[in-house]
Amino acid sequence: MTLSYGRLVFCGVVARAVAGAALAVMLVTAAQAQPDPLPSWNEGTAKAAIVDFVRKTTDVGSPDFVPAEDRVATFDQDGTLWVEHPVYSQLVYILDRVGPLVKAKPELAKIEPFRTVLSGDREAIAKLSLHDLEKLAAATLTGMSVETFAKEAKAWTDSAKDKRWQRPYTELTYQPMQEVLSYLRANGYKTYIVTGGGQDFVRIYSYKTYGIPPEQVVGSAGAVTFSYGKDGKPVLTKDPKLLVNDNNAGKPEAIHLMIGRRPHAAFGNSTGDRQMLEYTAAGDGARLAMLVLHDDATREYAYGPAAGLPDTKVGAFTQELFDEAKKEGWTVISMKRDWKKIFSFE
Amino acid sequence: MTLSYGRLVFCGVVARAVAGAALAVMLVTAAQAQPDPLPSWNEGTAKAAIVDFVRKTTDVGSPDFVPAEDRVATFDQDGTLWVEHPVYSQLVYILDRVGPLVKAKPELAKIEPFRTVLSGDREAIAKLSLHDLEKLAAATLTGMSVETFAKEAKAWTDSAKDKRWQRPYTELTYQPMQEVLSYLRANGYKTYIVTGGGQDFVRIYSYKTYGIPPEQVVGSAGAVTFSYGKDGKPVLTKDPKLLVNDNNAGKPEAIHLMIGRRPHAAFGNSTGDRQMLEYTAAGDGARLAMLVLHDDATREYAYGPAAGLPDTKVGAFTQELFDEAKKEGWTVISMKRDWKKIFSFE
Repeated sequence: MTLSYGRLVFCGVVARAVAGAALAVMLVTAAQAQPDPLPSWNEGTAKAAIVDFVRKTTDVGSPDFVPAEDRVATFDQDGTLWVEHPVYSQLVYILDRVGPLVKAKPELAKIEPFRTVLSGDREAIAKLSLHDLEKLAAATLTGMSVETFAKEAKAWTDSAKDKRWQRPYTELTYQPMQEVLSYLRANGYKTYIVTGGGQDFVRIYSYKTYGIPPEQVVGSAGAVTFSYGKDGKPVLTKDPKLLVNDNNAGKPEAIHLMIGRRPHAAFGNSTGDRQMLEYTAAGDGARLAMLVLHDDATREYAYGPAAGLPDTKVGAFTQELFDEAKKEGWTVISMKRDWKKIFSFE
Repeated sequence: MTLSYGRLVFCGVVARAVAGAALAVMLVTAAQAQPDPLPSWNEGTAKAAIVDFVRKTTDVGSPDFVPAEDRVATFDQDGTLWVEHPVYSQLVYILDRVGPLVKAKPELAKIEPFRTVLSGDREAIAKLSLHDLEKLAAATLTGMSVETFAKEAKAWTDSAKDKRWQRPYTELTYQPMQEVLSYLRANGYKTYIVTGGGQDFVRIYSYKTYGIPPEQVVGSAGAVTFSYGKDGKPVLTKDPKLLVNDNNAGKPEAIHLMIGRRPHAAFGNSTGDRQMLEYTAAGDGARLAMLVLHDDATREYAYGPAAGLPDTKVGAFTQELFDEAKKEGWTVISMKRDWKKIFSFE
């Protein structure tokens, strides 16, 4: 192909003009098509607080701008990211593991509290003391290699179902909170789970369920001991010794240990999250502290005095916490009012 | 501007032909210009082991392929990423902090081991017992808020200089290892420091020095306690209570606590890293276990029996470790033979 210089220049001008027009069209379309990052949220103070926080901390021109590598957000799990009522799923796991455990060690069948759990007598099981539960936890969560535990926990997580919804627990995450996780990550935030639940347990499903890798799960953690197996290979064995109690004041303490800096945003739903929210909110610049209020008895559950109901064992959202949130300017998320839908399957 | 259809089509053909040719040229150039990711490494088994590991674990068609979200590499710090000889920089920090500490608490001046440190008598300081050093560590590293500690440690890190090179310690990182960090990260690996040194100390400079954010520093860690200050604001105070001893078997244990999975690659330089390397190498598929051998007395230091020299207090690269590396197929990096340059400023 031979071309005169004049023709090439002309073509160049046309090509630039066409490309420029195309780019302009694309930019306009992108601006128009920008989808709502929080489609399951109703418009209101809660949604506005989240959007406003992200804008203020990611806009380079904002006085509250936070460099991308410093953006950290922490989320309690039970009652904040997924259903915790009427009982924590990890407690169901512990009870479900008693059967296989007794099969392997039949002598346990006659010993309490294993005998009560095996009886299936719900009323008796509900009355087990904290000391009994600790015994059950030690027997089902420790004494094995970290790989064996992971295998057992994964098999249960893949098959166990919540009684009310007849779905795997991992499907009972709150769609609006999943959107907050994605929205924050899309804006450069590292998202962490900071849970009173077992760190090794939550790490099994965190990536698949929330897009949160194991190393970004901070939880209550037992010690592990390194040794060599019969084949000479290294083994890490789970010990019945609590190293990190990730509840209440233990939450900011564990955040310092595991993350090493103060979060810019924290989400919780009970007094167990109070200190994490206080610690987060006390930092400089824009900080986001939010509490999920369980006030939707129809679509999920309503519990705690702030929902006009008597307190329960789980998820103590006390009046005192409600008052502190108000005084400190934390935002309370009403499941009933603020969430268009609760689960992705609705 | 008006254009005939024929002209537009002709221009389109030209534009595509020109664009196609340009793309081809760019691709060829890119392939030719693909820079060596490890320019400070001499060709040899060590460099080949690293490149081969990255290829095998990142090539989708490889049987050893590792999904991007699972790629974890861990690095000891002292003697592996930067100079540890003749003394760990954190120990210099502890000794340097005694002056300001005694200024604030003059009563310490007459008490051992503070009196010996203040005397400046190097011989006497070198003879301090482990118990004395623990006393000094407790006094200089704990008892303050995490923010006060960070401020003090940062001020020291920004100003203190190594005696031999007369440069900040943070400039005494090994250029070849910086290249390994960057190379692994460019290939989707999360890079972690797993150090016997203080976690809070290393986190101060890790991002600026290695591109490793604080949450990817696993180290020896003390407890912190949450409380409220006089102004009612939450405070985390550093306690003189060791929570994580990140040496020897403590390294794989801390890796499980802080990362939650087995690394695919691990780098060390002493018996303190043995169990981390064993744990890493025992995983399925391709694993990389490497040890830095200090055998370059001219450009850095030579120490340890494997370098044909008597062992020293720091960085015990024993003959036994050398033999294990050989038996297990770990790769020993000879600073003298494998590294073209040691520091970026050479």
